[in-house]
Amino acid sequence: MASVFTDGETFLNLYRVDFQPIGRRGTCGTDQSILNCGQRLGVEILAVCGGKGKCGSCKVKLVSGPTSELTPLEKEKLSFQELEAGYRLACQAHSTGDLKLYVPPESLAAQQRTQVESFEISCSPDPPVRFFKVECGMPTLTDPWPDDQRMLQLLEKRYQLVCHTIDIEVLRKASSIIRSSCEEVSLGVRGDEVVAIVASSVESVGLALDLGTTKLAGYLVDLIDGRTLGCKGTVNPQISFGEDVITRLGRANTSMRDAARLSDILLQEINHLSADLCTESGIDPQQIIEAVVVGNTAIHHLFLRLPVNGLTHSPYVPSVSRPLDLKARDLGIRIAPGAYVHFLPNIAGFVGADHVATLLATSHWQMNGTVLVLDIGTNTEVCLIHKGKRTSVSCPSGPAFEGAHIKHGMRASSGAIEHLRLVDGRIEYVTIGGGRPVGLCGSGALDALAQLRLAGVVDSSGRIGDHRMVRGHNGEKEFILVAEDEMGENRAITITQQDVRELQLAKGAIAAGIRVLLEANGCTEQGIDKVIIGGAFGSYLDIASAVTIGMLPNLVSDKFMQVGNSAGMGARLALVSRAKREEATKIGSEVAYIELAAFPGFAQIFAQCTSLGHDSIWEGETNGN
Amino acid sequence: MASVFTDGETFLNLYRVDFQPIGRRGTCGTDQSILNCGQRLGVEILAVCGGKGKCGSCKVKLVSGPTSELTPLEKEKLSFQELEAGYRLACQAHSTGDLKLYVPPESLAAQQRTQVESFEISCSPDPPVRFFKVECGMPTLTDPWPDDQRMLQLLEKRYQLVCHTIDIEVLRKASSIIRSSCEEVSLGVRGDEVVAIVASSVESVGLALDLGTTKLAGYLVDLIDGRTLGCKGTVNPQISFGEDVITRLGRANTSMRDAARLSDILLQEINHLSADLCTESGIDPQQIIEAVVVGNTAIHHLFLRLPVNGLTHSPYVPSVSRPLDLKARDLGIRIAPGAYVHFLPNIAGFVGADHVATLLATSHWQMNGTVLVLDIGTNTEVCLIHKGKRTSVSCPSGPAFEGAHIKHGMRASSGAIEHLRLVDGRIEYVTIGGGRPVGLCGSGALDALAQLRLAGVVDSSGRIGDHRMVRGHNGEKEFILVAEDEMGENRAITITQQDVRELQLAKGAIAAGIRVLLEANGCTEQGIDKVIIGGAFGSYLDIASAVTIGMLPNLVSDKFMQVGNSAGMGARLALVSRAKREEATKIGSEVAYIELAAFPGFAQIFAQCTSLGHDSIWEGETNGN
Repeated sequence: MASVFTDGETFLNLYRVDFQPIGRRGTCGTDQSILNCGQRLGVEILAVCGGKGKCGSCKVKLVSGPTSELTPLEKEKLSFQELEAGYRLACQAHSTGDLKLYVPPESLAAQQRTQVESFEISCSPDPPVRFFKVECGMPTLTDPWPDDQRMLQLLEKRYQLVCHTIDIEVLRKASSIIRSSCEEVSLGVRGDEVVAIVASSVESVGLALDLGTTKLAGYLVDLIDGRTLGCKGTVNPQISFGEDVITRLGRANTSMRDAARLSDILLQEINHLSADLCTESGIDPQQIIEAVVVGNTAIHHLFLRLPVNGLTHSPYVPSVSRPLDLKARDLGIRIAPGAYVHFLPNIAGFVGADHVATLLATSHWQMNGTVLVLDIGTNTEVCLIHKGKRTSVSCPSGPAFEGAHIKHGMRASSGAIEHLRLVDGRIEYVTIGGGRPVGLCGSGALDALAQLRLAGVVDSSGRIGDHRMVRGHNGEKEFILVAEDEMGENRAITITQQDVRELQLAKGAIAAGIRVLLEANGCTEQGIDKVIIGGAFGSYLDIASAVTIGMLPNLVSDKFMQVGNSAGMGARLALVSRAKREEATKIGSEVAYIELAAFPGFAQIFAQCTSLGHDSIWEGETNGN
Repeated sequence: MASVFTDGETFLNLYRVDFQPIGRRGTCGTDQSILNCGQRLGVEILAVCGGKGKCGSCKVKLVSGPTSELTPLEKEKLSFQELEAGYRLACQAHSTGDLKLYVPPESLAAQQRTQVESFEISCSPDPPVRFFKVECGMPTLTDPWPDDQRMLQLLEKRYQLVCHTIDIEVLRKASSIIRSSCEEVSLGVRGDEVVAIVASSVESVGLALDLGTTKLAGYLVDLIDGRTLGCKGTVNPQISFGEDVITRLGRANTSMRDAARLSDILLQEINHLSADLCTESGIDPQQIIEAVVVGNTAIHHLFLRLPVNGLTHSPYVPSVSRPLDLKARDLGIRIAPGAYVHFLPNIAGFVGADHVATLLATSHWQMNGTVLVLDIGTNTEVCLIHKGKRTSVSCPSGPAFEGAHIKHGMRASSGAIEHLRLVDGRIEYVTIGGGRPVGLCGSGALDALAQLRLAGVVDSSGRIGDHRMVRGHNGEKEFILVAEDEMGENRAITITQQDVRELQLAKGAIAAGIRVLLEANGCTEQGIDKVIIGGAFGSYLDIASAVTIGMLPNLVSDKFMQVGNSAGMGARLALVSRAKREEATKIGSEVAYIELAAFPGFAQIFAQCTSLGHDSIWEGETNGN
């Protein structure tokens, strides 16, 4: 298990340590506590007592690998449940081999940046659940109607509304609510079902959820006026089962227990997120009478415990693609007992409901001309809208833009370099939070590659040439972005030849997807009228850098729109508007899908698209293949 | 707590002991074990080891009252859970005060008789769930449809069947079933929902349940040909919360915990009953794809955890009267995961879905003329069908016909005298099981009253006169049915003046209900063309005796039909036929209900109807009131 590195650092007996979910990796010596190691790597683990084992604020969970024995202080500070779950105090535990650790949000000084904001789109609210006031009264000898008949009769008499079903939880609560609210109550009606009964004056609130591979975003929405009452992001706890969905799908496929656990931990986090949102907005979770969920197909299936075997091998077909309406209580989501959760449709195994939501949110800009819509992430979904027809592809762009597989990569947390420029032979950079640099997040890595390409340090094939700031290290060239002396701690932040290769694969996958879409629809690069980019990384990336390295088409800058968390926006639209929900269903069934691997000549297209020379990527489009 | 009786028996320091659910009561001395006491009273508690505390077969559960300390043998034989739940070994425990005990079925040598049989009615099966074979296949690159779309497309293409919903559990299982069954599967369709997916050849089975206050009856039915595959009766375990529904409703009304427990224990027993039925018929419970439940309104509400406050006071209005369709998994009923449970409608607080089921089962005989339909029990529902109009009443006949409130009364268990005749001044009797007499069940008590009335021992007011077999006892007259010497154990079985009064109240309630129905519809006793009697007690009662005491109209015997468990039959019809189910819904909404307490002059009618002289009961009908 143990490895000995000579990583340019002074320790012997070093072990690899991987801090999740922020994705910071580094090495640690046996003489260092996990806390010291994390701090050295820029992971801001809380240590209120200064690492003396007295405050218990530095709890971390051991995911895998060997550590030192539990200390008496740990036995004192950690509960039995925590000890069983593998929690340690970072200030007390030492690594005795390669480690993977999970740092829970409460142990982090700075929260990871989770993109929840987006542009706001106004739409006329037309929510699936509407409340109607009725004077129910109590039965008497002369008016001996049971609660169920009384409610349905009043809805029909006063509102000409014919309902056929009343949720069992409404029936269970009806008589006490009628009595306690002086007999006037509000009935929540969804389709032909009464799903809620409340005292007469109540807010009508919905919950929209965007379940990403890495991040979860939740929104509380007023269903009457469509206003967003609160939004909040958190980390998808499934990350402890694997950073990428493929690993998680594999776990679910081979172990029923893991499949159940993957669903359970996500459910728990959703309930936390919803409870936090409610607390912040002063709302009772029981007031949430409808929810909408979007997410990629894998997370959708893992959450709903649907079979995922189809997603792990060609032709990558989901089990379920149509929209679903399920009772929240059937899923364990703690909102109003009669509430439904609507799941937007999936398009394909790797083009999920989150992409449908993005297309829904951005449909306003898809009206005229030829439009590209991208959701950039570990998997990048691209849709080309041309002559009213939508065609989508899924590009396996990999985790490089999340900071993984990059030597000094990290997620978009405090200390990540998010933008940089090579100015007069010097690197100028901006970090998230403005503090000292810890590593490179996706947008920073993208900028670095573009700057090196512009400066001629990297050629079109991706080879790093010679430069004053290029050095050899472990037999590999690397460009020094932040020198060692600046850090005051003997560490440099560099971009290596291997990093460049990873970024080429990532951007090549996206460019190849775009080229296939253009070819299949008989379009050209310059014929594109608009490029809409959604997703967290898509919001922060520098368009000019992306164009420079040939990831995005070479268009004038005002053709690009960065729209933030468009999937979350789409989820909110489908929550407050029945018309938008129907449109999403239509999108789900109408979008044409091209399986890239099955597209003629795709391997050659992909190889061309990894080039950092812009012409060689897009010139193929008129030649076909 | 302790009472000292001089009950004609030789013990001092005697305590009252009440053995449930069989309803045998008696006295017990501190020097007697509960086993000895039970055996003396004819309660056939198992004692495989002969009462030495070695076999553990005589487990009984203490419901209330003080007992002796636990013995070491009990601590050895009873599990921790059993000890916590109040179980004792009957051979080890002694009473130290008045006791109420529950004897579980497994501790009884002879099972209580539960009426499950009835006449069979043939109807054309037209079940709510039907199976359709489709060749689903697995997705390929050229046929990349997800499971959900594939299933719906095949149903439409091959059967012109348009479905909109697939149960989530079907979606969860689909891919593995498609793969394991060589791609041809059967889809169970209910309305526009796919509720089941099974390997291609499978039996299609439904479960019908009749939930009575005292007894539960379950039926497995083949949904293809309507055949009853198995039937089984058991005791409603709610009996440990009170023999009558009023006590149980009170418990549920005052304690949320009791309300939950009343539902839970019934659910557990239903699952046991269903599992037993499946085992006996060689069927997997997962094959049961639809269930129908009937029961009186109180049990319906207690099972579904609906508010019962409306049922405990005038105007006795249920919370829910319309039929319900609920997912079995929502209720915890362990059948196919996507199956629905259909609950027939209730008519009023004390005219429930069991009465609707009886009316459904007997509708064939209601076609012509004026028909009375009775469900006789603790509560007796009577319906008069006249000129196509159905009117029902609920008569509080009380528990006398269940053997309660009768000195030597008991339920219809082994040893109960079920029929008797006074022949040449001697009583001839028949017991259930043919063994030595233990007590009187309802039909035996009814016969006794009729025979005494015919012999002139009892006059029309119910007063016991003088007779060689009448003796005074504790200041009350009683007629000796079985003399002490015959028992060989110094005990007689008698019918007392108080017993006669109880039976008068019971039969008077029923007769008054019938008279109100006749009056309200302008009918006469002799205008009745048919009297249909359902329910367990109704199957065993002697019609001539019932007519003699003025409980039933004085009609020629071929106008009477005893149809067995008609509620169970109705449940089975609603299970296999959608047309019958619709008819039940129609019955539920169309039957007119008369609240007896609110009927003008009801108190006087009831008083007249307690008379044992036949003329005084029915003569009022033409006079009105």
